[in-house]
Amino acid sequence: MSTKRNIQVCFTTSQFENYADGSSTVVVVDVLRATSVVSTAFECGVDAIVPVRSLEEALAYRDSENHIIAAERNTLPIEGFDFGNSPYHYLNTDVHGKILVLTTTNGTRAIHLAKAHKVITASFINIDAVANYLIKDDNNVIILCSGWKGFFNLEDTIFAGALSQKLLDNSNFLSNCDSLHAAVQLYSSAKKDLFGYLNESSYRKRNKSKEVIKDTHFCLNPDITSGIVPVFVEDRLIKLSS
Amino acid sequence: MSTKRNIQVCFTTSQFENYADGSSTVVVVDVLRATSVVSTAFECGVDAIVPVRSLEEALAYRDSENHIIAAERNTLPIEGFDFGNSPYHYLNTDVHGKILVLTTTNGTRAIHLAKAHKVITASFINIDAVANYLIKDDNNVIILCSGWKGFFNLEDTIFAGALSQKLLDNSNFLSNCDSLHAAVQLYSSAKKDLFGYLNESSYRKRNKSKEVIKDTHFCLNPDITSGIVPVFVEDRLIKLSS
Repeated sequence: MSTKRNIQVCFTTSQFENYADGSSTVVVVDVLRATSVVSTAFECGVDAIVPVRSLEEALAYRDSENHIIAAERNTLPIEGFDFGNSPYHYLNTDVHGKILVLTTTNGTRAIHLAKAHKVITASFINIDAVANYLIKDDNNVIILCSGWKGFFNLEDTIFAGALSQKLLDNSNFLSNCDSLHAAVQLYSSAKKDLFGYLNESSYRKRNKSKEVIKDTHFCLNPDITSGIVPVFVEDRLIKLSS
Repeated sequence: MSTKRNIQVCFTTSQFENYADGSSTVVVVDVLRATSVVSTAFECGVDAIVPVRSLEEALAYRDSENHIIAAERNTLPIEGFDFGNSPYHYLNTDVHGKILVLTTTNGTRAIHLAKAHKVITASFINIDAVANYLIKDDNNVIILCSGWKGFFNLEDTIFAGALSQKLLDNSNFLSNCDSLHAAVQLYSSAKKDLFGYLNESSYRKRNKSKEVIKDTHFCLNPDITSGIVPVFVEDRLIKLSS
């Protein structure tokens, strides 16, 4: 019988150094919206996604053949970029075969923070593919919630609870991590109506625009279910199928 | 009408720099057991409590007249100290008029981390006194959970939820903080049976000794209700009555 593997949930990037061990697989989560955009863009046919930390790094790709540049800061798109951080940009445009260069407030930074580890990204859009991938993988698992500028957020936490529950239902995982227990409980309260549950969240209070509300519905209750697992290799996310 | 005051919950010491503003009142929480010990020791008549970060600093008070030295690391008492970190040490000994020098794994360090602010300490033993004090105070409030070595823990979080609920029930407080919402929800699930709720917590799994289980019952469902608010002034906690 194989040894049980450990799962932990890290609520914010500001705590990650306590969890980093150089050997676990890190699952980066930024449900609203960066990692949902990553899943959607792959589903729509992009070949690779280069997550970068600064607007300047992204702009350096502006005239590169076959590249799209996308940026978001504080939920808003940025002048001079092809796209912002809405999954509908990819659903509504032919992006097949393109390379997406993406920089966002929290999610793309979390990927770089964890890159000494094997890093994959997850969202409700590809949750089953990610769970299946992790079940077949050999490593311990750290679910890294991107949060908001170093603060805890509810949306990434309930996703972490949903993914943790799927892994714990598989008998090869265990956890002694209080943050995982909290995430599972919060997801259990939220799961009947994720959008309604987040009514009081800081994200929903910050974002009242029709576009972001439409995106939020999509990211929480996606109409597509992707079999794709984005994995970070060298400087970019490429797609695996689980 | 006065402006509403903000409450935030910081889940771990490793996140505190994101919350620190130099002006809020910081409520340090280490329910199992440091801040429960602080409340109990004051209830039993100690005059002041000097929280120190290292065993060496505490040992320097070993031969000082009228001082008691107490230490805990990783839940265990330390050779050469009068007391460990059990509230029963103070209930079972005459400590009236003494000065307690205390160093623990998490709680006393959290006090020092926050000391650029007004710092008070809280536990279930003195929760009503702390709530009343904060209601009369003018500052915004940061509830700082000591956690465990930089990690989130359930016991401090449910306490933060209980205290937050008492403050939100007072109409002069508001919060846009996702961690506060999570803490309030977790407390709501836990409140019927705090000890049973923590069965799966990492604290309970780490601590199976009869002494710690007895202490845990006491700290979660105290037989005494203290009207004392410990406030950090210069290098020590002194007692106020709310």
